[in-house]
Amino acid sequence: MKKLGQQISIHHGNGGVQTKALIEDLFIHFFENEFLENQSDSAVLPVTGKNIAFTTDSFVVDPIFFPGGNIGSLAICGTLNDLAVSGSNPLYLSVGFIIEEGFKISYLERIVRSMAKEANQAGVKIVTGDTKVVNSGKCDKVFINTSGIGLIEEKHVSISSGIRVKPGDKILLNGPPGEHGMAIMQARGIFNFKSNLKSDCVSLFPLINEILKVSDGISFLRDATRGGVATVVNEIARKCKVGVEIDETCLPVNPDVRVMCEILGFDQLYIANEGKVIVVVDASDAYHVLNSMRKIKTGRTTEIIGEISSDHKGKVVLRTKSGGKRILDELIGDQLPRIC
Amino acid sequence: MKKLGQQISIHHGNGGVQTKALIEDLFIHFFENEFLENQSDSAVLPVTGKNIAFTTDSFVVDPIFFPGGNIGSLAICGTLNDLAVSGSNPLYLSVGFIIEEGFKISYLERIVRSMAKEANQAGVKIVTGDTKVVNSGKCDKVFINTSGIGLIEEKHVSISSGIRVKPGDKILLNGPPGEHGMAIMQARGIFNFKSNLKSDCVSLFPLINEILKVSDGISFLRDATRGGVATVVNEIARKCKVGVEIDETCLPVNPDVRVMCEILGFDQLYIANEGKVIVVVDASDAYHVLNSMRKIKTGRTTEIIGEISSDHKGKVVLRTKSGGKRILDELIGDQLPRIC
Repeated sequence: MKKLGQQISIHHGNGGVQTKALIEDLFIHFFENEFLENQSDSAVLPVTGKNIAFTTDSFVVDPIFFPGGNIGSLAICGTLNDLAVSGSNPLYLSVGFIIEEGFKISYLERIVRSMAKEANQAGVKIVTGDTKVVNSGKCDKVFINTSGIGLIEEKHVSISSGIRVKPGDKILLNGPPGEHGMAIMQARGIFNFKSNLKSDCVSLFPLINEILKVSDGISFLRDATRGGVATVVNEIARKCKVGVEIDETCLPVNPDVRVMCEILGFDQLYIANEGKVIVVVDASDAYHVLNSMRKIKTGRTTEIIGEISSDHKGKVVLRTKSGGKRILDELIGDQLPRIC
Repeated sequence: MKKLGQQISIHHGNGGVQTKALIEDLFIHFFENEFLENQSDSAVLPVTGKNIAFTTDSFVVDPIFFPGGNIGSLAICGTLNDLAVSGSNPLYLSVGFIIEEGFKISYLERIVRSMAKEANQAGVKIVTGDTKVVNSGKCDKVFINTSGIGLIEEKHVSISSGIRVKPGDKILLNGPPGEHGMAIMQARGIFNFKSNLKSDCVSLFPLINEILKVSDGISFLRDATRGGVATVVNEIARKCKVGVEIDETCLPVNPDVRVMCEILGFDQLYIANEGKVIVVVDASDAYHVLNSMRKIKTGRTTEIIGEISSDHKGKVVLRTKSGGKRILDELIGDQLPRIC
């Protein structure tokens, strides 16, 4: 446990290098099994000759209501997205609430309504739940865990493993990064900046379902949440033992996010999203998939942002706007805690 | 939402009348579906022609280490038990941690070791997980959510629905109630009482598996956790539209629990357990099941504590030691918050 230090720090929860250390040195070390070791958003599990996806996420976002969503819609979309990127068809969700004594029932109702709405839209049922109440001051308003089960068709089973990823594959991103993280930042009101920026919190299943229908060339899918786009492309480079090249000039950009990042000194590639998916696809199918994605609301601003390379294995290289190249590193410090 | 009041109170989390109101008036009202409406410990779900059990639980127990277990072993056993009482064979678990900044890594390691040990003993894999860290003061040390999936054989699918329960059935309990709740109470050190009392926290799957092997007459199974034995038998009476009679003289008793309850004015039938199961069985099989249970460590002190009646439907009648009869009501106030 030497690498982990003596105490949990806020960085252990940021989705970056320290989260990875905690997962590998503690959880995978003791819980040791082939499913967990894959470190996918969902575990892909054999059940009576079929394959199901199983995923879990706890949500501790602060504030619980923010432009574009709330902790409830975030919990449902987040879990639906983890199921969708594993190539599965989401079927069932569980919900566990931990609520602080004194929390307003009207707030809880608003959260529950949003959850029901998102689940209904996705055709998914919330089938089991749990409620715990803790004394005032022992949690922060409300925390929500959602776990989910999806069914994976045989031909999509290997998508979440990353083994299909190969040099030459194109990397697509369905819109500008950083909207969720920056909307949360703004909602906290800790700096004086007003914009119409909203979280991109949305269910990506309809978009991903369409991609998997129109192309057999999909190599990998991953939603870019904590740690942002940079964390996902680094994960691809490491997990698939390939190089990744990202072209900064091709990145879709939200002008509000850009301005806020410039003021605050953040890099939008590390900021959290809740409605962005990285799609790795065979080069021959890339433009077909691009066009199909752009026809769907959540994919309208999709761009090809880079490609898989056989050079600099395990590393991500960013071709900058100024024509230079630099390594796009893994996230080390934390930019924004409690964004999901 | 009138019945629920304006704010969440600690009683909304006690497993009694107010928890039920919250579940029915808010969660089931908005999440409306046939699986959730059944209000079983696990949802019984069709997946490609088979039936799986799916369950979730968040654990907020205080203190996190206590005689007989810790929050980690409790989380694994609790979820295994919810799967087992639905008649399923537990297969896979997820784990979601919410950890307070500054929490000792050595404590986390101790918790994770216990979880791994319990999961290994049960032959169940922890296949997916999530970690969130919140700032100091925003949660109380560590909260754990465990969700689980089990596979149900066709002949056991209706067990968790309660439809098999009928007048004449015998009610068995595998040991003295109240040990978990009272061990937690004692571990809080808020009153001066020393004993060797330990939580009964244990995986009940081996015991339940044996019951289902030796008898086709099992009508219903439920582990008696929050709200204790009284809450489970009231649930049976209400859900199955039958009367329940419990014979106080037949109840197995732990002398330490009895003394502590007398001092504190508690009723052991409402105190939480983490290793006790209520078994409802056809009268013709009752003694056979009783003897089979007594051969297994976690069932050694099993007793037949009552029976299902066609009288006083929806109510539980307690035949007291003094020969009288009284209604054993649902739990209204809260005896012990944060016991699981």
